[in-house]
Amino acid sequence: MAESIRMLSKNTVKFIKSLHQKKFRNQEQKFFVEGEKSVLEVLDSDFIIDLLITTEPFLERINSKITHSKTQVIVATQNQLENLGQYQSNDSALAVVGMKPNHSFDLPAGELAIALDDVRDPGNLGTIIRIADWYGIKHLVFSPQTAEFYNPKVIQASMGSFTRVNFFYEDLASIFRKWNVPVYGAFLNGKNVHELKGVKAGVILMGNESKGIASELEMSVTEKVTIPGFGKAESLNVAIATAILCDNFKRLTII
Amino acid sequence: MAESIRMLSKNTVKFIKSLHQKKFRNQEQKFFVEGEKSVLEVLDSDFIIDLLITTEPFLERINSKITHSKTQVIVATQNQLENLGQYQSNDSALAVVGMKPNHSFDLPAGELAIALDDVRDPGNLGTIIRIADWYGIKHLVFSPQTAEFYNPKVIQASMGSFTRVNFFYEDLASIFRKWNVPVYGAFLNGKNVHELKGVKAGVILMGNESKGIASELEMSVTEKVTIPGFGKAESLNVAIATAILCDNFKRLTII
Repeated sequence: MAESIRMLSKNTVKFIKSLHQKKFRNQEQKFFVEGEKSVLEVLDSDFIIDLLITTEPFLERINSKITHSKTQVIVATQNQLENLGQYQSNDSALAVVGMKPNHSFDLPAGELAIALDDVRDPGNLGTIIRIADWYGIKHLVFSPQTAEFYNPKVIQASMGSFTRVNFFYEDLASIFRKWNVPVYGAFLNGKNVHELKGVKAGVILMGNESKGIASELEMSVTEKVTIPGFGKAESLNVAIATAILCDNFKRLTII
Repeated sequence: MAESIRMLSKNTVKFIKSLHQKKFRNQEQKFFVEGEKSVLEVLDSDFIIDLLITTEPFLERINSKITHSKTQVIVATQNQLENLGQYQSNDSALAVVGMKPNHSFDLPAGELAIALDDVRDPGNLGTIIRIADWYGIKHLVFSPQTAEFYNPKVIQASMGSFTRVNFFYEDLASIFRKWNVPVYGAFLNGKNVHELKGVKAGVILMGNESKGIASELEMSVTEKVTIPGFGKAESLNVAIATAILCDNFKRLTII
């Protein structure tokens, strides 16, 4: 339940607009989330909302969900919300949320993880997060040059799934050494994933949109895997390929 | 080999810019294709290029591929190309291409087809065309409200694969009756596609981005199929789901 309700000030507008830029997100260690679905998902998550800008009708719906004492609530109009964020239409809310620290973790035994080597497009990253959440893959690790998790386009494309994955950024070769589990890398000349057998757990590694997996990382790959093609397209989009590999690995590790 | 080479006129610029709009594409029965990869694919296809606007260096590379007597060649600068099309960067070419007539066809025995019920987003349609081409699925049928095949965003997202599929727009229920093959519809409450057996050929039917498959079409569906989820994401993007179903059906019909 919101303790006190403020009106939207010019300084708050300026602050939220600054969070459209990576530089200020990093400086403040905050990002923003907009739209009904994503804001509801954040309210249900372990992320902490600093500032919730909401329309009156939406506030009535969610008031009981505002449980953290740190959360300040500001009532705004739909026009004000649309001016603050990147959505063309937003009649519900925008939340300013604290980032999580970039701590590495161990991969629990028997679990699958997804590793991304320089996946640069925010839409692809967000879509991959949504796919990971669909397949119950909770552990993600990103090379330092991968798109920024808190980019508004990543948050939007993940459709709320960003609240349900654990992730960190680190040099992939060193984390693979530390985890010491099989690494299945997506290549165009690997083993047909339809014929893969005896897979237990490990890492599904996807490469950059145009260059694929960096050659320096190849020696960290336990097995090169390939999605069989039957036509003439030269490649698949990285998010599409991630989905197909997740589907094949879940089949292998569960059935 | 280009017969004669013209310079870019104001009228031609105006004509090509009009093709950014669906209304004029339909009126002229022409569309445009831009960038090295897509233009090379069109040159290798059975589409007929009316007008090829190209830089000098690119013309030298492709001159021997310009085999159709109807193709007029215009030399332009990179700046002029970028002004004509939607690409931010284009140092190769832009082609004005004739549309194919919207003729229905029969589905050859033993083949898979993809049917789209009101998939509205051009990026999704283009990505699905690329996926169909990857899996060697040559036959596509679209409900009349599906995105326009010749939309520049569809052409771009298909990465040249638009040249290798056959398609037409028609009421899906009537075409399913005519084809008389099994229709596998993507639903959230169908049979687990990992457990599907005995599939031979037929249609993979995908629904609209937010509404799914129209209820009027449900009676045309032979079997409802579902991609098993293991996490908490509510759904998958339609292009992602198409890719996963194609991968599962190819496995079933080939192995």
